Amino acid sequence: MSALSPEALRAHWPAEDLAHMQRALALASHGVRGANPLVGAVAVGRDGTTLATGYHRGAGTAHAEADAIANAARDGVDLTGSTMYVTLEPCNHTGRTGPCAQAIIGAGIARVVYAIDDPHDIASGGARTLRSAGVDVESGALSAESAELNRRWLEAVAGRRPFVTLHIAQTLDSRIAAEDGTSQWITCPESLADNHATRSRIDAILVGSQTVAVDNPRLTARAEDGSLLAHQPLRAVMGLRDVPEDAAVRGSDGRFVHLRTQNPAEALVELFAAGVRHLMVEGGSRVIAAFLSAGLVDELIVYQAPTILGSGKNAVADLGVRTLADAQHWRWDEADGGSVRRLGADVRFHLAPAAPAAADDSSKETH
Amino acid sequence: MSALSPEALRAHWPAEDLAHMQRALALASHGVRGANPLVGAVAVGRDGTTLATGYHRGAGTAHAEADAIANAARDGVDLTGSTMYVTLEPCNHTGRTGPCAQAIIGAGIARVVYAIDDPHDIASGGARTLRSAGVDVESGALSAESAELNRRWLEAVAGRRPFVTLHIAQTLDSRIAAEDGTSQWITCPESLADNHATRSRIDAILVGSQTVAVDNPRLTARAEDGSLLAHQPLRAVMGLRDVPEDAAVRGSDGRFVHLRTQNPAEALVELFAAGVRHLMVEGGSRVIAAFLSAGLVDELIVYQAPTILGSGKNAVADLGVRTLADAQHWRWDEADGGSVRRLGADVRFHLAPAAPAAADDSSKETH
Repeated sequence: MSALSPEALRAHWPAEDLAHMQRALALASHGVRGANPLVGAVAVGRDGTTLATGYHRGAGTAHAEADAIANAARDGVDLTGSTMYVTLEPCNHTGRTGPCAQAIIGAGIARVVYAIDDPHDIASGGARTLRSAGVDVESGALSAESAELNRRWLEAVAGRRPFVTLHIAQTLDSRIAAEDGTSQWITCPESLADNHATRSRIDAILVGSQTVAVDNPRLTARAEDGSLLAHQPLRAVMGLRDVPEDAAVRGSDGRFVHLRTQNPAEALVELFAAGVRHLMVEGGSRVIAAFLSAGLVDELIVYQAPTILGSGKNAVADLGVRTLADAQHWRWDEADGGSVRRLGADVRFHLAPAAPAAADDSSKETH
Repeated sequence: MSALSPEALRAHWPAEDLAHMQRALALASHGVRGANPLVGAVAVGRDGTTLATGYHRGAGTAHAEADAIANAARDGVDLTGSTMYVTLEPCNHTGRTGPCAQAIIGAGIARVVYAIDDPHDIASGGARTLRSAGVDVESGALSAESAELNRRWLEAVAGRRPFVTLHIAQTLDSRIAAEDGTSQWITCPESLADNHATRSRIDAILVGSQTVAVDNPRLTARAEDGSLLAHQPLRAVMGLRDVPEDAAVRGSDGRFVHLRTQNPAEALVELFAAGVRHLMVEGGSRVIAAFLSAGLVDELIVYQAPTILGSGKNAVADLGVRTLADAQHWRWDEADGGSVRRLGADVRFHLAPAAPAAADDSSKETH
């Protein structure tokens, strides 16, 4: 890490470059969190006019640079000699989409300014490839802001574990089931559809073995008419209790795994090894508490119905917090549709873990 | 009640009248709920142009008609010969503000169209007074909509009890205190200020005797610097347990009452007799549950912080609900600042009890 403060680093950059990168960052936040980071790109002509913009819409879709280049092609705009601002180093590998470095070279872009390096071993080298082809490459513009936007994703990549989305569907008084166990459905059809849309773009979904015993969920991604969506997540059950042979979660497609552990970190190692890069945890309350207290939730989506039970199961089981000063703090996450919005009869929250207090302190010490 | 459906009643009214009344209704919703109903008024000239509008901002402020007439005077607009649309029958009594019937006659308004009768014995007669003065008076336009806007207020008036606002300040997982009892402060300064602003316009505030024993709250309406606001609510403690002689809630201004009952209906009778028309209930969880299960909450304001405790005190104690089908249903209340909004670090909800299913069914039977 550099010893310079973000303000000092920022002073090195012309205001024009920072303004374009700020727009790329704003574009980035339209994407969805998950296996891939939020990335935005802006292509600017020699005269300073914007030629094309793009952003990444999530795993399996075009990267931000490719999106911007495709938008330029669609509009008949020539990017030759332009500068591209992108919030992450362009990739050099051919994954589900082609390498962005080659696309940039092919488009005749003369200069690339990016915010932070791509942390993947497999992807690194994008900057080198660009330079070898004669593209002028600079990095570090708004690097602190770009790193913050994807802080939890970068931590997940560094920890070689999946990015974890926690899903909670609760009443106004944070109950996820009534006293007799009934929970279908606490939330409205629009919330259920939103949840199934998320299921259809993640790699795996996880519940506790207790939830399987009580609710016998299918954990499939379904359309409103009940039919299966095209992409189905791996179905994972965590816990020591056996999963019954006739449990619905087993399905018939072989996309089921039982993780015989109560330790979320162990479950994530196993899932990562199986290729899972984005996991959604759906409950119950003890599994939710286990992931929360381990600090292994990167994103929290809460559907809250305007109903009150007054008894039944709390969404979050004991975290070991005894006093208010030790409460877990979250921040409203404006990315991906916004932090607080009405959704059918419910309200939908989107939150991210608040930055640790220690990190805040260290950044304050630099100025 | 008329046997005609709202649609049949509506068919009797010219579209023009309904459009003006609809605007009066929309204006009404800008007010605050409490001791007085939400009321809006629109004055329209003979040529159909809007001359003035007004609405009621809560107890102690001008009624909607007086507000509209004052706005016309301020703008130098002559209301002679105009029609006034108002969502509630103009009052005939001199309370904290003068009688609206006289103000309307004084302004030379020729015709008054109102939605529903004033349910107060003391206020009734406004229509008669207007007619005696030669004003053309018609009633019933959008009466169902106006009654629905003030349904809970009308029920409170009919029941000769205060209008009840329930206040909850909770974490994301609906805890109002940590396991060790700490609860200051779960919510942010903006939420606290909003709560104190409400305290400064209600007649009384109520907590349980258990809350007094644990938290020793002052229950005063304070500015952010801690100084007392001009209007202070009566401080009521409900419950069988004694209130200690040195409890902060007793204060030194004599505005304290101990209601030795666990029955919310009994507490409300006593408070109504003491002149209380708007009560705010602030906790704890057993008092909250008592008011909720008695159906005696007319408005619910929830401040929800983006924090998680996982243990401690649930906001709502047992309501006797055993299964999801019996959950209490609420609806988002758009009046008075909106139903869901960010407030500082928190989110603020504004809800009203959902109409009973039986009432819904009967209205469906009419068409």
